[in-house]
Amino acid sequence: MKVSIERSALLKAMGRAQSVVEKRNTIPILSNVLLEAEGDTLSFRATDLDIEVVDRAPAMVLSAGAATVGAHTLHEIVRKLPDGAMVELEYDATAGRMNVRAGRSNFSLATLPREDFPVMASAEYDCNFAAEPAVLRRLFDKAKFAISTEETRYYLNGIYMHAADGPDGRTLRCVATDGHRLARIDAPLPQGADNLPGVIVPRKTVGELRKLLDDDDVQIAVSVSETKVRFATPEVTLTSKVIDGSFPDYSRVIPQNNTKRLEVDAAEFSRAVDRVSTVSSERSRAVKLSLDEDRLILSVNAPDSGAADEELAVAYGDEPLEIGFNAKYLQEIADQVDRENAVFLFNSSGDPTLMREGNDETAVYVVMPMRV
Amino acid sequence: MKVSIERSALLKAMGRAQSVVEKRNTIPILSNVLLEAEGDTLSFRATDLDIEVVDRAPAMVLSAGAATVGAHTLHEIVRKLPDGAMVELEYDATAGRMNVRAGRSNFSLATLPREDFPVMASAEYDCNFAAEPAVLRRLFDKAKFAISTEETRYYLNGIYMHAADGPDGRTLRCVATDGHRLARIDAPLPQGADNLPGVIVPRKTVGELRKLLDDDDVQIAVSVSETKVRFATPEVTLTSKVIDGSFPDYSRVIPQNNTKRLEVDAAEFSRAVDRVSTVSSERSRAVKLSLDEDRLILSVNAPDSGAADEELAVAYGDEPLEIGFNAKYLQEIADQVDRENAVFLFNSSGDPTLMREGNDETAVYVVMPMRV
Repeated sequence: MKVSIERSALLKAMGRAQSVVEKRNTIPILSNVLLEAEGDTLSFRATDLDIEVVDRAPAMVLSAGAATVGAHTLHEIVRKLPDGAMVELEYDATAGRMNVRAGRSNFSLATLPREDFPVMASAEYDCNFAAEPAVLRRLFDKAKFAISTEETRYYLNGIYMHAADGPDGRTLRCVATDGHRLARIDAPLPQGADNLPGVIVPRKTVGELRKLLDDDDVQIAVSVSETKVRFATPEVTLTSKVIDGSFPDYSRVIPQNNTKRLEVDAAEFSRAVDRVSTVSSERSRAVKLSLDEDRLILSVNAPDSGAADEELAVAYGDEPLEIGFNAKYLQEIADQVDRENAVFLFNSSGDPTLMREGNDETAVYVVMPMRV
Repeated sequence: MKVSIERSALLKAMGRAQSVVEKRNTIPILSNVLLEAEGDTLSFRATDLDIEVVDRAPAMVLSAGAATVGAHTLHEIVRKLPDGAMVELEYDATAGRMNVRAGRSNFSLATLPREDFPVMASAEYDCNFAAEPAVLRRLFDKAKFAISTEETRYYLNGIYMHAADGPDGRTLRCVATDGHRLARIDAPLPQGADNLPGVIVPRKTVGELRKLLDDDDVQIAVSVSETKVRFATPEVTLTSKVIDGSFPDYSRVIPQNNTKRLEVDAAEFSRAVDRVSTVSSERSRAVKLSLDEDRLILSVNAPDSGAADEELAVAYGDEPLEIGFNAKYLQEIADQVDRENAVFLFNSSGDPTLMREGNDETAVYVVMPMRV
């Protein structure tokens, strides 16, 4: 193969490829990117065996063909080339080297046989639909903070995407939880997604997907089977295995009868939680909420280092309540609010608390209290 | 004590104090800052027993006094307070607590007895002079990359500041070396610095000093004894022990008879070294320079990952030469050049190489070659 490609197009595609490739690999070929030149396109394929990304960029193909080369090395080289450079990639099959030329720079990179490159088996997808980038962005961005990092609970290490009956009809729903907090985000179910099987999209895939969603002008083609999920734009195809496990029945966790309603400016609340939690010891970051008629006092008491409290003017009309939370969990939930006030719905100091944005029931958060 | 102080002034002073305080301390009092209120000034004293910084800020002192409180906690609190806030600090001697109040936030912080706070013994300084911030900035900034990090060679873990005879007369000179490269930076000797004893200023002190040098309008009062060095502005006094050891006789290392002269654009050279070294394995980052009539070829050969070369147009009129260097060392030296071209003076492939900016002999760098 021999191609000539503009540095910025090469950098963009290689940036996507190298982010899928793990830094350390016991299987050498997994460190490589598979370059395939044909027609007027250079395609880039990278995988970690669970996720595969295929990127396509326009290139002048002088000779079609394919080769694999270290993804991080090629990415680094391209990154360091001057902006606007034309880059020539030529595979020397005899020497088993990929020659990279730009200006007066020449590189000769080790390759591995293209036959060894593991191409993900194509799959039959049960469900295909199109989604707006902004819709997927909201679904995944607002849920991902709640993904569990506990490897033993592998079925919580992702976002559960499925079709559900929401308050306003059928919805495309993303749920994540780590047992301490939960996020449930809804969007109207896109056409063609009726028979969507419920799948758990792994954390790394969520991160890679996010990079496809910055351009609002391209629709995302979503395909889902029992074992795989695929997100595609005209340029990029991201395919990922889904987590092989059952997502727990989250609906039991979402409180239905919490009636004590607190409304508060989310940003002000988050900053106040951050301030008072400064004095808490690193382990237990417990903050206490003391609620009374239109008044919220946040307080922290850490015998070793000190105590802190802050009062906030809020809307609260129910009986006095004291309830404790992990400060980080409270902040992360409040930080999801981007339009209206945060509305908290409490039951008692021992029950899960619900939070949403104003009266919007398409984004619902649950946080477990802790004893303070 | 009870004082009221503007948040931004408090933040600035606490920022300086907490940067001297180590994150982990086996001696609890060293985690604290000593606050002393008197007249219309609040002073902040922090130390790690080797370095002491005293900062002064204007404050409304309602009641004079002193107390110590956790430096990182207080800094974090102040950082999180809203801009423009007035902060009240009140020491409650009965409870042994420092109360911090701003707006509706209240903090009550643990304290330790002020008597336990180690105040650095004042010293007799043999030499006192004033220096421009820009002069000290240049002396220390250009030398510090060469400071050794090897703890066993503790006498190289700093910058050797002393008076010397330079090419243009008496100079204030800063030298650093790690055995692989060396930087020697000169400035005209300030008035009053004639009897300057040679001192090794520790790496951490160099970092703290740097923060005093951003304001070009205040002169720096420098005081030096055999064991201590002090840098002071009207607001801040930084006192530090110097490293108790002998700095090696560096003059032997600086080649005098290197005649093969290469002149090259420093930025272009640095970028090219960066590019070709991409293919080198992480351990040995060797780059080879092949010099011929007005031509420089940089090359790297790493059997595992590949090879790279790049040609640069340079000014070189001597016999052909091949010489190898650690790529990182070459880049760090080239990155010190900020005005003219980099001028390298070589002898042979086994001898130390000298670099300077154009013909300026007040900043001289030496780098040892490596076999390639």
